[in-house]
Amino acid sequence: MAQKLTRVLSSEAKDFIDKEIMLRGWVKIRRDHGKLIFFDLRDRNGIVQVIVNPKVSEDSYKVAQDIRAEYAVEVVGRVNKRPEGTVNKDLASGTVEIEAIKIKVLAEAETLPFDMGADDLNLELPTLLDHRSLTLRHPKIQAIFKVQAVIIDAFREFFKQEGFFEFQAPSVVPAVAEGGAEVFAVDYFGHKAYLSQSPQLYKQIVMSAFERVFSVNKIFRAEPSVTTRHLAEVVSLDAEMAFIDSWTDVKDMAEQVVRFILQRVEKECTNELRLFKVGLPQMIDKTPNLSLREAQEKIYKIKGRDVRGQKDLNPEDEREICEIIKRETGSDFVFIYGYPTRHKPFYVYPNPDEPEYNEGMDLLCRGLEWLSGGRRVNDYQQLKQHVKLWKMDPKKISMFLEAFRYGVPPEGGFAFGAERITMQILQLSNIREASMFPRDMERVDERLSTQK
Amino acid sequence: MAQKLTRVLSSEAKDFIDKEIMLRGWVKIRRDHGKLIFFDLRDRNGIVQVIVNPKVSEDSYKVAQDIRAEYAVEVVGRVNKRPEGTVNKDLASGTVEIEAIKIKVLAEAETLPFDMGADDLNLELPTLLDHRSLTLRHPKIQAIFKVQAVIIDAFREFFKQEGFFEFQAPSVVPAVAEGGAEVFAVDYFGHKAYLSQSPQLYKQIVMSAFERVFSVNKIFRAEPSVTTRHLAEVVSLDAEMAFIDSWTDVKDMAEQVVRFILQRVEKECTNELRLFKVGLPQMIDKTPNLSLREAQEKIYKIKGRDVRGQKDLNPEDEREICEIIKRETGSDFVFIYGYPTRHKPFYVYPNPDEPEYNEGMDLLCRGLEWLSGGRRVNDYQQLKQHVKLWKMDPKKISMFLEAFRYGVPPEGGFAFGAERITMQILQLSNIREASMFPRDMERVDERLSTQK
Repeated sequence: MAQKLTRVLSSEAKDFIDKEIMLRGWVKIRRDHGKLIFFDLRDRNGIVQVIVNPKVSEDSYKVAQDIRAEYAVEVVGRVNKRPEGTVNKDLASGTVEIEAIKIKVLAEAETLPFDMGADDLNLELPTLLDHRSLTLRHPKIQAIFKVQAVIIDAFREFFKQEGFFEFQAPSVVPAVAEGGAEVFAVDYFGHKAYLSQSPQLYKQIVMSAFERVFSVNKIFRAEPSVTTRHLAEVVSLDAEMAFIDSWTDVKDMAEQVVRFILQRVEKECTNELRLFKVGLPQMIDKTPNLSLREAQEKIYKIKGRDVRGQKDLNPEDEREICEIIKRETGSDFVFIYGYPTRHKPFYVYPNPDEPEYNEGMDLLCRGLEWLSGGRRVNDYQQLKQHVKLWKMDPKKISMFLEAFRYGVPPEGGFAFGAERITMQILQLSNIREASMFPRDMERVDERLSTQK
Repeated sequence: MAQKLTRVLSSEAKDFIDKEIMLRGWVKIRRDHGKLIFFDLRDRNGIVQVIVNPKVSEDSYKVAQDIRAEYAVEVVGRVNKRPEGTVNKDLASGTVEIEAIKIKVLAEAETLPFDMGADDLNLELPTLLDHRSLTLRHPKIQAIFKVQAVIIDAFREFFKQEGFFEFQAPSVVPAVAEGGAEVFAVDYFGHKAYLSQSPQLYKQIVMSAFERVFSVNKIFRAEPSVTTRHLAEVVSLDAEMAFIDSWTDVKDMAEQVVRFILQRVEKECTNELRLFKVGLPQMIDKTPNLSLREAQEKIYKIKGRDVRGQKDLNPEDEREICEIIKRETGSDFVFIYGYPTRHKPFYVYPNPDEPEYNEGMDLLCRGLEWLSGGRRVNDYQQLKQHVKLWKMDPKKISMFLEAFRYGVPPEGGFAFGAERITMQILQLSNIREASMFPRDMERVDERLSTQK
């Protein structure tokens, strides 16, 4: 009799009160109350409660007796308003429930290796990752990647609005410009090639043609250490802009994109932030910026720890300077600029007034680095001089150098990792949680030690 | 005296007639007419003509005498309406010219190795690629990557609208599911890992959690052959969707995204298409679809060539069937479906009524494949059986298989390469032109043979 119904998503069910609709999704939790069976149906938009009453549908009741968590099902049912006291405010569909008329199993599921029904998964990290195919279905795990997708999308949206051109940086590169044991070698048709550690030189090339560019691309780091903050494969968000007046143009652009990302996360990820019980970091109207030496001076004055003259901030310095700035200004963010020139890569621009310090910068937040960048050397002669001073092989970066032979104006840019920002926004304890398929020294999907 | 002017882009100059503005960009062509010097200034938005008159500014004239192509300059000038007969209709700024008041050289350029001023570059492909840093500045080369950026952006926009979730597929993978010498090996902390040939299995995993997913990610193919249609590193556009009723849902989604991409290219790339003198392929209201056997039958009937019983279409078949369909329906596109099951990968769904043929499909256009996909095997038992029949090692795809243990409904998806589509829309003769930094057997930036 019934004509085939069009599928309705869980979040839309409330628009069909007293009507018959068809839903599809996965069984999240099933509760057998004897006379009635309840289950939560999860689809891509959320969760809705289904109630199975044998007096309404004997068939449905029979099917519902056998279904278990993670069965994929199709439910035809009537949308009922929930009685006052039983409204679930945590769900978009919390004001309604579906009275099952027909249930069809689309795919069965084996018994789960652990409980997926609770609000938290409470698994050890290795178990969480060993069972990624399953744990990705948990709403709190999905929340991580929804936040990450918004971060990446906001990054792109901001730069498109600002007239930046999106390009695809290569992953396989011919040589390692700055030495480095921390690079993966690829057997490339009998030649040696490498996985890109950074699109830095390529984005500068593309900038020299397109002026303002950005990319979302993979980078690879073979750091032989296991920390909670490093991955071997990272999604790098990169931007580069020509015709700047000063390195502060780069700083301002970085501040703007971070602000834009935070605004979109705040707007679109309310539920996800609530699940993690975190508030977004505070960005005040104008993010404070300090030179490295000013920061070290402040730490000395206020904390009494003398790190003046050090070439960089160490993790303790980063925590302390963020704490100080937060107390002084209310800002969770602070830019630190002006690092010792020779301590940083060859392409970072030295301050002309004081060439032993550069115009590189980092954005710190709550004690951690979010983003790195600065002005670059754009003059061809100066660049060649740096290549010599840094003892690099110009042949290995000849394509990069060629760009600068032909008129590259003052320019700069910055980069940050999508997983790192996701981790820091959600205050995850390990960056592996912020990567769907994290790669590290010990794991590529499965633990390497378990492989032949 | 003068307050610092804010930079105006070339395309905006026409809004400042009789006013003084500041522009920044690269010198495209400089023409010295003795009493007057003209040059075209190129910035990220276009090109505008600058006229340098010593009677207006002696200083500017002196500077302009020394500048050459690809100098980066800042020009302060007055925006004049061009006299009637001298309007350049090919430029957004063609109704105006800038009378220079002050010219500042931001960066000098060496003499170019070839002429960059003509409408076409007319370089041999190896030269074009050897000098990528420079050739990327040519408007016709930039047009290729503008079209590509629109294709990729349209792909993402379409799927976001359709409720698909964007995920980041990994590039480093632990094992090669389907054998294959055509894979790059990576030295991974002393273990052997590989570069991903396709995010296929990962997108199916993520689909099993997020229902509808898409990704823009790199894939790597170590095909030891040099053709005009293959690259070693490709930007793959992938989508996968659960809860389908039939493989035709996948086909319809593929048709819709291609239509959406073509519409955005048509709207946003008018100039770029004009530069290449190409029209977009014709997509009629409902793209025709034929089974492989129907296509072979048509070729036999109409062209008299008997390819019936062949396991796939060869390039000549593809050309002929496109030609036939174009003549019969006006459509440049045609779906071919129903390939011999055992001739295709293990995850392609066999037609239940005729299991020796599958529900895989290809979208052809003007004789070439644009996109590939279809319905997948979703039942765990059937999948395990296929793994056995295809003689695969289930341990190597255990994470993939785990997803299917826990209720995966009917599903399907498809993929296509961004460079391939760019090449075909612009009718480029070699896919390397559609990759900024093409990687192939002979080249990673530079020709491998020139490296030590």
